[in-house]
Amino acid sequence: MKALWLENGKIDFREAPQPQKPHEALVKIRKAGICSTDLELVKGYYPYTGILGHEFVGEVVKADDASWLGQRVAGEINAVCGQCEQCLNGRPTHCESRTVLGIVNRDGVFAEYVCLPIANLHKVPASVPDGMAVFTEPLAAALEIQEQIKIGAGDRVLLVGAGRLGQLIAQTLALTGCDLRVVARHQRQQDLLTARGIRILNEEDIQKWRWDVVVEATGSPSGFTLARKAIRPRGTLVLKSTYKGEMSVDFSSIVVDEINLIGSRCGPFEPALQLMESRQVDPTVLIDAEYSLTDALKAFEHAAQPGALKVVLNP
Amino acid sequence: MKALWLENGKIDFREAPQPQKPHEALVKIRKAGICSTDLELVKGYYPYTGILGHEFVGEVVKADDASWLGQRVAGEINAVCGQCEQCLNGRPTHCESRTVLGIVNRDGVFAEYVCLPIANLHKVPASVPDGMAVFTEPLAAALEIQEQIKIGAGDRVLLVGAGRLGQLIAQTLALTGCDLRVVARHQRQQDLLTARGIRILNEEDIQKWRWDVVVEATGSPSGFTLARKAIRPRGTLVLKSTYKGEMSVDFSSIVVDEINLIGSRCGPFEPALQLMESRQVDPTVLIDAEYSLTDALKAFEHAAQPGALKVVLNP
Repeated sequence: MKALWLENGKIDFREAPQPQKPHEALVKIRKAGICSTDLELVKGYYPYTGILGHEFVGEVVKADDASWLGQRVAGEINAVCGQCEQCLNGRPTHCESRTVLGIVNRDGVFAEYVCLPIANLHKVPASVPDGMAVFTEPLAAALEIQEQIKIGAGDRVLLVGAGRLGQLIAQTLALTGCDLRVVARHQRQQDLLTARGIRILNEEDIQKWRWDVVVEATGSPSGFTLARKAIRPRGTLVLKSTYKGEMSVDFSSIVVDEINLIGSRCGPFEPALQLMESRQVDPTVLIDAEYSLTDALKAFEHAAQPGALKVVLNP
Repeated sequence: MKALWLENGKIDFREAPQPQKPHEALVKIRKAGICSTDLELVKGYYPYTGILGHEFVGEVVKADDASWLGQRVAGEINAVCGQCEQCLNGRPTHCESRTVLGIVNRDGVFAEYVCLPIANLHKVPASVPDGMAVFTEPLAAALEIQEQIKIGAGDRVLLVGAGRLGQLIAQTLALTGCDLRVVARHQRQQDLLTARGIRILNEEDIQKWRWDVVVEATGSPSGFTLARKAIRPRGTLVLKSTYKGEMSVDFSSIVVDEINLIGSRCGPFEPALQLMESRQVDPTVLIDAEYSLTDALKAFEHAAQPGALKVVLNP
């Protein structure tokens, strides 16, 4: 099969054998999404060699349990051991010997087929089309914030960054009834938010020490600086994107202001699927373009444009 | 009166007028303690000019409300406006225009007298001697951790650092029944902990990803690195001491491991006084030496020795 292979920070096509792993399901990819993590992997921020891609919707074509055959599925990206201290204590996404789809030691979804453990699969409701289901993984990641902290009406919440992931975070935060404002740099990002009744805040209007919760979703040191300024003493600053290399931070001020910093990564798939089924969240408006897998290099260029939102690949 | 004055990172004695401020109490200092923050101020880590010192027990000699006269008191160090957003929302220690005793725009306690608002004063129970009451402020700071996060039996808690503040944190954490271990570099620090049945852990025996809660009380980047290694995914890392300048940190790993970092500063005085009254905490064993105020320069040298614990000044 044709697959998009990453090696030494370069992507290119490679002819790969159809994958097979004992007891894992074989899934035929229907759609796959390009995520900022993919772009960072290509920049060489993290070492990974193999087939790229981790956001997808597909169809099960082989499985030990025949009831899965023909099912349309989304898949959790962490394949876990079930036996380490993290797995045994209810933190499987932190499995100490996990492989991660298209990120750590496990071939990803920018290909015709992928293997995943059955335990990772979630059936996609019939009313959720492929162009929506392909967002299950990033939408789950957005929902992880609410798994970690309670956000409700009356909370003043500032989201810094309104890109691919930021838009999904904005839609999920808006459902809590909190007093939400979003810092969005690009006009199209702003328009998408405004269309959903989500209010924009200009960078220069951010007041110091005002926000109960700030979510940082830019992944840039300047975004962190802005978030750090906006958060109130004893407030919670959620770090929702990764940063290149080390970042220099004034930790004394974090101590003096008693700030709560929380890193946030993968989230729950079922609530994500339910929110799309009920249309309380609609990510399809975020699709900027679709490319066939054979045009993946062009698709990556598109996705790397400033302000670009979701670019989808069709095998 | 004689006072220990800090200016441009140098301390020296100065003849100062007896302080007086409208509506504030005048307190005659009975004992004052040297804290790591004092040592950092002298090193010039933070800009402050004025009389140094913020840990004390004293006697009220002047007050608008005569019922305070003759009372033995400890005093909260943040003098607040009562009107800003932080004060109005139950965060007075984060008052946006606060002055801080011996730290920010308010003369401190290494002198014969000090002024403080009546609202800052707490009566010291008769059964708590001066040598114990002088620890009220740092003990309250230790208790702040439990104001911020719930710690109980079954929690695996690692304390990194067993100096002046670390010892108090250890004593308060031990009361929760948690599974506590302490990293203590100096023999005397270890002996004090062992004498209370608190278990020591050698640095080299720290396992990665093991501890539910890690309290960092060294204020050094190496202490932070150790704490970061020890904390488990989704664990809580409490930052209990300030750091010089900026610190370079791998924030991506904090996101990936979903770590919760919490800065922690000033705490509640009444529980601190109660714990000493009941002798559930006994900080007097931490006193390394007492000096008369006139020997304060010698006392500061003593306090700056590696492994030194509490040095007390008697006016």
